[in-house]
Amino acid sequence: MGESVHISKGDEFALLPQTAKGTEMGALLRRNWHPVALSRDIGAGVAKPIRILSEDLTLYRGYSNQAYLIGGRCAHRMTALHSGWVEGDELRCMYHGWRYNGSGQCTEMPAEKDRLTTTVRIPGYPVHEYNGLVFAYLGDGKPPAFDLPRKEVLERPDSDIMLFSREQTWPCSWFQHVENSMDAVHVSFVHRKGNIGPFGEAVTAAIPDLTYEETDAGIRQTAVRAENNVRISDWTFPNNNHILLPMYDKELPWCDLSIWMVPRDDENTVRFQLYSVPRVDEEADQRTLRHFETYGGYDPADHHDELVFHGKYPEEPFLQLTNAQDYVASVCQGAIVDRASERLGKSDAGVALVRRIFLRELAALRAGEAAKTWRKLDHAVDLPRQVPQAAEA
Amino acid sequence: MGESVHISKGDEFALLPQTAKGTEMGALLRRNWHPVALSRDIGAGVAKPIRILSEDLTLYRGYSNQAYLIGGRCAHRMTALHSGWVEGDELRCMYHGWRYNGSGQCTEMPAEKDRLTTTVRIPGYPVHEYNGLVFAYLGDGKPPAFDLPRKEVLERPDSDIMLFSREQTWPCSWFQHVENSMDAVHVSFVHRKGNIGPFGEAVTAAIPDLTYEETDAGIRQTAVRAENNVRISDWTFPNNNHILLPMYDKELPWCDLSIWMVPRDDENTVRFQLYSVPRVDEEADQRTLRHFETYGGYDPADHHDELVFHGKYPEEPFLQLTNAQDYVASVCQGAIVDRASERLGKSDAGVALVRRIFLRELAALRAGEAAKTWRKLDHAVDLPRQVPQAAEA
Amino acid sequence: MGESVHISKGDEFALLPQTAKGTEMGALLRRNWHPVALSRDIGAGVAKPIRILSEDLTLYRGYSNQAYLIGGRCAHRMTALHSGWVEGDELRCMYHGWRYNGSGQCTEMPAEKDRLTTTVRIPGYPVHEYNGLVFAYLGDGKPPAFDLPRKEVLERPDSDIMLFSREQTWPCSWFQHVENSMDAVHVSFVHRKGNIGPFGEAVTAAIPDLTYEETDAGIRQTAVRAENNVRISDWTFPNNNHILLPMYDKELPWCDLSIWMVPRDDENTVRFQLYSVPRVDEEADQRTLRHFETYGGYDPADHHDELVFHGKYPEEPFLQLTNAQDYVASVCQGAIVDRASERLGKSDAGVALVRRIFLRELAALRAGEAAKTWRKLDHAVDLPRQVPQAAEA
Repeated sequence: MGESVHISKGDEFALLPQTAKGTEMGALLRRNWHPVALSRDIGAGVAKPIRILSEDLTLYRGYSNQAYLIGGRCAHRMTALHSGWVEGDELRCMYHGWRYNGSGQCTEMPAEKDRLTTTVRIPGYPVHEYNGLVFAYLGDGKPPAFDLPRKEVLERPDSDIMLFSREQTWPCSWFQHVENSMDAVHVSFVHRKGNIGPFGEAVTAAIPDLTYEETDAGIRQTAVRAENNVRISDWTFPNNNHILLPMYDKELPWCDLSIWMVPRDDENTVRFQLYSVPRVDEEADQRTLRHFETYGGYDPADHHDELVFHGKYPEEPFLQLTNAQDYVASVCQGAIVDRASERLGKSDAGVALVRRIFLRELAALRAGEAAKTWRKLDHAVDLPRQVPQAAEA
Repeated sequence: MGESVHISKGDEFALLPQTAKGTEMGALLRRNWHPVALSRDIGAGVAKPIRILSEDLTLYRGYSNQAYLIGGRCAHRMTALHSGWVEGDELRCMYHGWRYNGSGQCTEMPAEKDRLTTTVRIPGYPVHEYNGLVFAYLGDGKPPAFDLPRKEVLERPDSDIMLFSREQTWPCSWFQHVENSMDAVHVSFVHRKGNIGPFGEAVTAAIPDLTYEETDAGIRQTAVRAENNVRISDWTFPNNNHILLPMYDKELPWCDLSIWMVPRDDENTVRFQLYSVPRVDEEADQRTLRHFETYGGYDPADHHDELVFHGKYPEEPFLQLTNAQDYVASVCQGAIVDRASERLGKSDAGVALVRRIFLRELAALRAGEAAKTWRKLDHAVDLPRQVPQAAEA
Repeated sequence: MGESVHISKGDEFALLPQTAKGTEMGALLRRNWHPVALSRDIGAGVAKPIRILSEDLTLYRGYSNQAYLIGGRCAHRMTALHSGWVEGDELRCMYHGWRYNGSGQCTEMPAEKDRLTTTVRIPGYPVHEYNGLVFAYLGDGKPPAFDLPRKEVLERPDSDIMLFSREQTWPCSWFQHVENSMDAVHVSFVHRKGNIGPFGEAVTAAIPDLTYEETDAGIRQTAVRAENNVRISDWTFPNNNHILLPMYDKELPWCDLSIWMVPRDDENTVRFQLYSVPRVDEEADQRTLRHFETYGGYDPADHHDELVFHGKYPEEPFLQLTNAQDYVASVCQGAIVDRASERLGKSDAGVALVRRIFLRELAALRAGEAAKTWRKLDHAVDLPRQVPQAAEA
């Protein structure tokens, strides 16, 4: 067991947004799988540069259809590898043709008669595709099994659900996104602004009574606004949240939304959203498909000045407005919020809890103790749907 | 009385552009009212972020029509307050609904049962609206009375004058703007370039004989180019200049122009211009109104590359060209001019004087002595109108 | 003789990209003439700001048609001089009219009765125009004679050749450009990507046998791909390369291309390209003229995102695609490539040699020893034209 090290409050806050390899939080985050791209954005034979956890990497898909994640630069003269080309399931550097397999092993040096290939290796990370998302494990050693607390709703048969995925990149720290998930009060203000859609209507402006409970998988949050207005969500350590949402049309059944907040680096976050939408009938399903096609490509970051400086919000509530409202609230805290200046209250219990849990885990790592083994919930009960106020009337 | 502290020339120069709260110049500037916005840009119920003297602030106007200037961020979770909304004469944060009055006092914390409001306060600064400009006092203690050396010309009845205001933000230090005001020689070169308008014609290319005299309010500058070509201006400490200008049409009487050069931060300056134009007759007044509407919205900063790299200047001389010429001269000195490398001459007496006055005032503050109490001029004689060369012929 | 100073590998690498006046490499580079602009871009009476070797300068052309290169700022109040205007063969500052001649000597201070002019001087550098390029010598003392190893091909009579010049600015270190010239292997990969033009076809994908030999003028590089496929180029110290190229149409004779890679600063390079194209007949020459007019204005830096992030390359191979491919390979190494992390092989002999030569010259300068006197090649034999593969068939 390591020695206890005293870390001051201000120092602790400074740990939270860190993501690079050498940092404590960077090490903790690297013990988990993270989505790094949408499957549909990386076709066979395509290579693209991505930045995840402050590392510049190359994601490519071989002609076998397998995706690979390797280092960003060729070991030879350091050219970015995504500018090269895929051959079979390997990637060749455009500059002098050095070739790498999906584990980062160099397999060809054409101008060197392949003399040195065995000793040359760049980073290579395990990749796992799941429901249209490309996940990767950037840690050392054997990756944990890929799991989620309520995979069931994402894995129902095609005849029952439709899945939709989105990717956005917001210019603020990933931990602000996590805190926003653990903060049910914000819904009563952030999402009541502007054109209030079904979500705003369903939630009402009433301030909820809040309960937060650490689970085997993360944190369960319960917000009670009225007897028939109970909102529960399951947050999974370290950066996934699972909520229920009304759809764009009140007549349709609610959908499940699983969101990952993945650090691009300390000041930028990639949000991957996976919607599991219950099928209704041919006509409604087609309408939903068109709705996602029409509105789902929105990224509030593309409308930053409009939203932040001119207060002009999009009209569509389900896929745009709610999103844009969270964007403004989070990004306007600053790229890394000044936590030392905050004034937290009792209603910030969720924010305080999630910080405590992360700091506890970091302390365990620092002391050489075993960090908590997070695992799937044994009993992932159905999350309740609130009855909208309008519907009550 | 404090001890005298030796400050080297280079160190003194470094003091001049500083504007932040902790700096000496920042403290000196904070003893004065500064315009911070145009009244017309902040309607009832509107909040906008502004940056003045290196402070990020929120300017909003209540539904009573009163304007308020408070801190930029909510004390709770640090979200920028301008993204919230006005309720009555208070401003509510969009994130969790904390509400602030115009003095920066927190008045509501909805999710906290208002438990803590009395102890929570953000900055709040006195605001004074004057002739279409919103002024604020960012210092400590009681603000001085709002005054100007020749308020008379700005306060004549509506039947005598028309007022026009403009706001521009230029990417260079406020002190370069002040120096440019104290430098009548520049007129013979900067404003003789390109399409010379009535102003250039009136002033002529003759090098003036210069006199600078410290007054109760600031500095009076006299530039004599010929017996019938005497130009006088009154500069008010710390950052206002008052000049007379020919209009866009030689047949019209000259107008008064009052300009404030307000630091946004050390490297950016907001220029507020207030024109007091004598009424002539219905037709001429309408023409002047249209002229301001057509050309007054120009900001040379929006045309930076064109002006600085391609030497393409606007045609209209009165509201655009003169402005653009000053822009190029000031901004091309660099964001903060390297004063240690300059070679000043006798013709730079005004620049030297205004620096000496500021450094004297800073030294007094540093030594704990009383700084000068600037006040309105007792005898603000009429400023002479030069007779244009063309008119002489 | 000075003392030997030990410089570590990492420190040596850090010397290579440096260009500023106080640096060792900056001093070495300043012993040579460098092109700084295209003659056609600076008409009589025009002044423009340029940045070369990390110095901000003003290039202007007098009405006598002579070009001059002087300091970037007026000595008086530091305004950028290019915003002034040319009078005769001198340049007047726009701010207060100080005037400078082409050697940087101040010749007029209108508001000072010219009292101080003799003591005021800004930098002024010798300029030499050659074949449509403006060269300058930024060093101390007498400049060396302007020379090139194979000036003959650039100086043949107008009836024999047509000259075309281009200027581009790429966001990476000049030394990466030099290394790319000393690296014949890259041709087999970089220029085989995408739409392979005559150049790609001529060179083939075969890996060459390479020989590098230090000459009186620089380095001669020989790349043998087959008996009838021998490619030779002459690189001139410190930053010029001379190669032969097939034209846009296989039927036309090959042309000579002389390229200078001139540091703008440590992280940006200005590439000047001078094509010497043999005349064929009226029709073909007109076609070539139109080809350069249509495609020659391309700068890959204007298409950075398209090239680097979307892999979209231009179609035209001769003036655009080859260029764009080199751009991606060089710029994707990073603004300054991390040489400490590289893995060089035997095929990098040219890169290793050119580094050794520069480091040897820097060591000589450091030790106060005589650096090598580079001079024109005594016997600049004709460079061979490869026989394209297609033509062999």
